[in-house]
Amino acid sequence: MKFNEFLNHLSNYEPGKDIEVIAKEYGVKEVIKLASNENPFGTPPKAIECLRQNANKAHLYPDDSMIELKSTLAQKYKVQNENIIIGAGSDQVIEFAIHAKLNSKNAFLQAGVTFAMYEIYAKQCGAKCYKTQSITHDLNEFKKLYEAHKDEIKLIFLCLPNNPLGECLDASEVTKFIKGVDEDCLVVIDAAYNEFASFKDSKKHLEPCELIKEFDNVLYLGTFSKLYGLGGLRIGYGIANANIISAFYKLRAPFNVSNLALKAAVAAINDDEFAKKTLENNFSQMELYKEFAKKHNIKIIDSYTNFITYFFNEKNSTDLSEKLLKKGIIIRNLKSYGLNAIRITIGTSYENEKFFTEFDKILR
Amino acid sequence: MKFNEFLNHLSNYEPGKDIEVIAKEYGVKEVIKLASNENPFGTPPKAIECLRQNANKAHLYPDDSMIELKSTLAQKYKVQNENIIIGAGSDQVIEFAIHAKLNSKNAFLQAGVTFAMYEIYAKQCGAKCYKTQSITHDLNEFKKLYEAHKDEIKLIFLCLPNNPLGECLDASEVTKFIKGVDEDCLVVIDAAYNEFASFKDSKKHLEPCELIKEFDNVLYLGTFSKLYGLGGLRIGYGIANANIISAFYKLRAPFNVSNLALKAAVAAINDDEFAKKTLENNFSQMELYKEFAKKHNIKIIDSYTNFITYFFNEKNSTDLSEKLLKKGIIIRNLKSYGLNAIRITIGTSYENEKFFTEFDKILR
Repeated sequence: MKFNEFLNHLSNYEPGKDIEVIAKEYGVKEVIKLASNENPFGTPPKAIECLRQNANKAHLYPDDSMIELKSTLAQKYKVQNENIIIGAGSDQVIEFAIHAKLNSKNAFLQAGVTFAMYEIYAKQCGAKCYKTQSITHDLNEFKKLYEAHKDEIKLIFLCLPNNPLGECLDASEVTKFIKGVDEDCLVVIDAAYNEFASFKDSKKHLEPCELIKEFDNVLYLGTFSKLYGLGGLRIGYGIANANIISAFYKLRAPFNVSNLALKAAVAAINDDEFAKKTLENNFSQMELYKEFAKKHNIKIIDSYTNFITYFFNEKNSTDLSEKLLKKGIIIRNLKSYGLNAIRITIGTSYENEKFFTEFDKILR
Repeated sequence: MKFNEFLNHLSNYEPGKDIEVIAKEYGVKEVIKLASNENPFGTPPKAIECLRQNANKAHLYPDDSMIELKSTLAQKYKVQNENIIIGAGSDQVIEFAIHAKLNSKNAFLQAGVTFAMYEIYAKQCGAKCYKTQSITHDLNEFKKLYEAHKDEIKLIFLCLPNNPLGECLDASEVTKFIKGVDEDCLVVIDAAYNEFASFKDSKKHLEPCELIKEFDNVLYLGTFSKLYGLGGLRIGYGIANANIISAFYKLRAPFNVSNLALKAAVAAINDDEFAKKTLENNFSQMELYKEFAKKHNIKIIDSYTNFITYFFNEKNSTDLSEKLLKKGIIIRNLKSYGLNAIRITIGTSYENEKFFTEFDKILR
């Protein structure tokens, strides 16, 4: 059977290995997963309670108006419901943006190394990808590339802070940059980890209501997968002016998010104690990762996220990842990003200690 | 801001109203929803237990290999894992099929009145829609239309049994029809309600392993939203030969289904008692709907599903729906399908009695 031609240019995405699957394969008793930037404290207690209470409603189709969650987000961010779209993860909102703006005759711009899904989704539309030479976000280079290919570039991704490298631009630099971007070019600000950056340094804080008031071409993306501990439920959101949201709605399948995810997300937003604990643990434990790096002469970039990236010179990241795996520790090897580096999620102090102990042995 | 041209041809889907939202709006205390063909007995007890037990794992990304559910389905249907793709509802697999096969230069074929989402999703690709004049599935007409537009038609939808009308073709007629279809044309058998049809009449039973053994161009769709009582979790599946599944995988976003849905689906498949109770209740209660129809001279089509469709002559279906709504009873008005008819989900005996009592008063 023949399929649409564009499928020939797409490759099959190889799913990562599940924690339980790995445990079985390697015969390790305890598996510590510091690979997917999940919340080390698990699911927020208020969300657990909500899920248990609503488990008997799994047969009911979701409220497709998503009014409860939209209103909660609208209040939190001081925007209107019409400025919000909910996706099955912020990933799905990235897909909407790409399908709404990109095609085989135009292009998008991103940092040298950033969230891999931008390129993967964009390939489905056949759009050209411009990347900065700098692996981290360098706005001067963004500007140069944009100016040189202004007619082509219809979408710009800014990942703030950046996954998988951890650096973050200041909000003031970002707004200055967007002022130089044509109104017809959509600037997607992927703020999946922005709560972490804001906590560490208020200069990194991005306020969606201010952004969409100033710019008609900005899309702010948030997620419940990181700080809010709901990665398994697939729920995130986009905030933008109503015209953009309305266009995205045309691409959204009805019932794109589960009813339990919609309910748990509201509970998670209201679990302030959990969020506070997560943020405090993250940056106090991050210090230990910095110390460890210093001790072992490992290069790092200052991280504004819930992970840290270790760069290696002689040692090979694939080899190191494999050795950690055998000890039951899963981290993210960044070889597929063209880097000899690993990305480690900041875990609980127990998990981090285990990592330090085992990695110390491996590095000797 | 300008968007891709094809968006201009798409309209915004108007989400249906949620049961809780309606209750508030109309100020009714008890709302009975017989509108979305949800399971009247709720979520399967084994799935509820599973959801409660796994509520504290909502922070973990799903196992994207989906090995546990795939293996369970593979065993149930006697197929291989490579023959299966899991979607966020079988809806999402319909989207994969459409995006893989259709484009603005080809066409698809469907019954005169059938599941509305086929046309809605296909519009995104700009494909032409051929429909039979018959509102129900008439394979002679399907054959004539297919032969007349063979070069254009690259996808055929058969909804067995048909939503929203309830009729079902015999399996033997279906296989005979597919033999006359070109190998490059994908035949999508939407079997969302097929467990109901099989229970009522074994001649309607479709066996995916036999279908995919005989035909390289058949996609069988199943869902957990109906018999298995998990409509809120958005989970369904497609079964086809490995080439088709592999093509669809290129269109699938990673983590397209939540981890709780994956787990609950396995629990639901194993809840035989719940499925048995659902099927028995459905067809015994269906008799009461037939009696009611006969008494009030309402035209029906014999239904092989968990709903029944009432056709009216003088009375107006929109008017009737509105009157029922005021009594707290939600059914599906089929006016948007061009029919002066309503579709009623077979509920519990309590819900059905309430419907009969109120509708009897309205019809007088």
